[in-house]
Amino acid sequence: MISIVVKPVLSRNKGGYVRRNILDLNTFNERRKLLNQKLNDSDNFFSEFGSLDDKVYSEGAIPKKYKELTGLSISIFSKCEECIAYHMQKCKEQGCSKGEVVEAIKIAVVGGGSVTYPWARKTIEIMDVLEIE
Amino acid sequence: MISIVVKPVLSRNKGGYVRRNILDLNTFNERRKLLNQKLNDSDNFFSEFGSLDDKVYSEGAIPKKYKELTGLSISIFSKCEECIAYHMQKCKEQGCSKGEVVEAIKIAVVGGGSVTYPWARKTIEIMDVLEIE
Amino acid sequence: MISIVVKPVLSRNKGGYVRRNILDLNTFNERRKLLNQKLNDSDNFFSEFGSLDDKVYSEGAIPKKYKELTGLSISIFSKCEECIAYHMQKCKEQGCSKGEVVEAIKIAVVGGGSVTYPWARKTIEIMDVLEIE
Amino acid sequence: MISIVVKPVLSRNKGGYVRRNILDLNTFNERRKLLNQKLNDSDNFFSEFGSLDDKVYSEGAIPKKYKELTGLSISIFSKCEECIAYHMQKCKEQGCSKGEVVEAIKIAVVGGGSVTYPWARKTIEIMDVLEIE
Amino acid sequence: MISIVVKPVLSRNKGGYVRRNILDLNTFNERRKLLNQKLNDSDNFFSEFGSLDDKVYSEGAIPKKYKELTGLSISIFSKCEECIAYHMQKCKEQGCSKGEVVEAIKIAVVGGGSVTYPWARKTIEIMDVLEIE
Amino acid sequence: MISIVVKPVLSRNKGGYVRRNILDLNTFNERRKLLNQKLNDSDNFFSEFGSLDDKVYSEGAIPKKYKELTGLSISIFSKCEECIAYHMQKCKEQGCSKGEVVEAIKIAVVGGGSVTYPWARKTIEIMDVLEIE
Repeated sequence: MISIVVKPVLSRNKGGYVRRNILDLNTFNERRKLLNQKLNDSDNFFSEFGSLDDKVYSEGAIPKKYKELTGLSISIFSKCEECIAYHMQKCKEQGCSKGEVVEAIKIAVVGGGSVTYPWARKTIEIMDVLEIE
Repeated sequence: MISIVVKPVLSRNKGGYVRRNILDLNTFNERRKLLNQKLNDSDNFFSEFGSLDDKVYSEGAIPKKYKELTGLSISIFSKCEECIAYHMQKCKEQGCSKGEVVEAIKIAVVGGGSVTYPWARKTIEIMDVLEIE
Repeated sequence: MISIVVKPVLSRNKGGYVRRNILDLNTFNERRKLLNQKLNDSDNFFSEFGSLDDKVYSEGAIPKKYKELTGLSISIFSKCEECIAYHMQKCKEQGCSKGEVVEAIKIAVVGGGSVTYPWARKTIEIMDVLEIE
Repeated sequence: MISIVVKPVLSRNKGGYVRRNILDLNTFNERRKLLNQKLNDSDNFFSEFGSLDDKVYSEGAIPKKYKELTGLSISIFSKCEECIAYHMQKCKEQGCSKGEVVEAIKIAVVGGGSVTYPWARKTIEIMDVLEIE
Repeated sequence: MISIVVKPVLSRNKGGYVRRNILDLNTFNERRKLLNQKLNDSDNFFSEFGSLDDKVYSEGAIPKKYKELTGLSISIFSKCEECIAYHMQKCKEQGCSKGEVVEAIKIAVVGGGSVTYPWARKTIEIMDVLEIE
Repeated sequence: MISIVVKPVLSRNKGGYVRRNILDLNTFNERRKLLNQKLNDSDNFFSEFGSLDDKVYSEGAIPKKYKELTGLSISIFSKCEECIAYHMQKCKEQGCSKGEVVEAIKIAVVGGGSVTYPWARKTIEIMDVLEIE
């Protein structure tokens, strides 16, 4: 299932744990792309909607970096794991720092409450995989 | 976990991918049935609620086929993977075409926005497994 | 506020009550149109999104009537009063019967639970105003 | 509209404000009852669903008082003003104290975050109207 | 009710309408403050939660202006009218332009779909009242 | 992924099935703890928020046991699998009976409708793992 974004192996290591499965995010990306293509092939609506979404997140009155951080906050707030995996990679591309990502998580958690915590955890996990520092 | 509805093996194949895991939907159905039985055994409430749900989705002023398509739209809109797996099988039973399923996805996506996309992808994936054409 | 769709005057009348404020739905429509125009004027995105939405709800593999009933179910499910007011008028235009509207309410209530009840009540109220029978 | 539960008149008064519109909650109750009756008359589903809901909230393994407080927490969490008005009156009937109601609000706010605050405010407002102390 | 943020009088005027009720936002602010005070008086939890919320939205790795715009997007996405009224005033204080507010609306609408439209309309309405240009 | 709380092996057994994976809940707890620690290390906000959450669920005007049952209802209502796994263990600690847990499930299902059913099933599954009777 696509819902399995990252499957870190729990290797105990001095005071923490080490992951070795960076490739899983690649698998997510590959399957996401294939399924989006299937949606696009099924009806013009999906490429038009996708194009609208891309335009909304393009550079504009609000810089793209801050749009991606907002997209990340909304992804956590709305409990959407794949949305988190997608926007985190965009945040990485935009050069977001760990400090910025953490603040985006805080906005989501204070706004959406403790039921967002599992998705805050997923975000911190993906932040490690992407080596955002 | 029940949440793993379909676990397609990613076998690259000319321009797409092939799945070989149709049985996973059977596993989902079997486990869903067993756990629903446990709920029903725990308290009369659950069989009464389930019976109400069945009646709502029975043939009526709105034909059953269109009710199942509405159920599918709501399942995607509310980001409920198991609900999608359930209503997709009902859509198959009602003889829904790919065109009808795709329109039900579109209603969910335009109504619920891009955060529903991961569930639109799950639907298109299950549509393949069920060979709805 | 636009959120006041209908403001029926509570005139006790043999076993029920009479409303006299059909015009309030007109006010809603007029203000909705003006504000949508302001959105459209602010950025192309809104007319493009609105156009996508219109296309999704146009006649297709699923007949427009059943799409509008699905839109109504989703509006109640998602607790959106203005969406209800909008789709109920579309249901009226499509010649939906009271029986069909009631079934759309039932799908929303069984799917979304008792927290949708206030919006089920708003729907039955608007059904009266629109004289859907 | 039913959505107007209480319309307190803002009369400034030493360090606070006084309300004089206790009757509005009566209006809410009266209209809620009439519209629920209309729903019940439209289809057996609604009286069956309502009956299930009543049974869930009856005395049981969990005392009715704590069920009503849970119902209040869920009403705030799900941002449902009429649900709050309903469960607050049930809490009053069950003899809930202000301390208990405040704790139910806290569970909703910490679970659902700052977007639940407007409904926390509505609850505190209705608590005053109902003179829960 | 607090839920009535702005009650514009519909005065037809060359191709549009004029509002004269800027004071209603003041009423919202005043009542919001009084009810928050009642919450704070009822239990320390609320001032601690409120303080956490203030800290999250303070200047940091993400500039306060972009945090407020994110808060606005989440407010629209989560269909919270009072949250919109609150964050719009904060956006005004941070000197946000109309272009920035419109982009925040777009992020919410593309992410949350057409069910967020009524709240997009409320935002554009408040933008007028606040004379954000 | 943390989202895999319990992975029961489906061993057919006279009229039911046997599980052998009680350890998976331990894995969930261990990983949850490690990731929460990472969140706490990233910013003071998270330990402050976590501390607020702990205080809300501490013994008070509402007994801790009933708070945990409310937390369980909200977890099912909000479709949060990890929240269910967390509160179920707290319910176990508080000595909740199967009858009480089943009533908390019923409150969630009647309030949130059939889209909560998959999470009701997860709860009944975890109840078995925890041997709540």
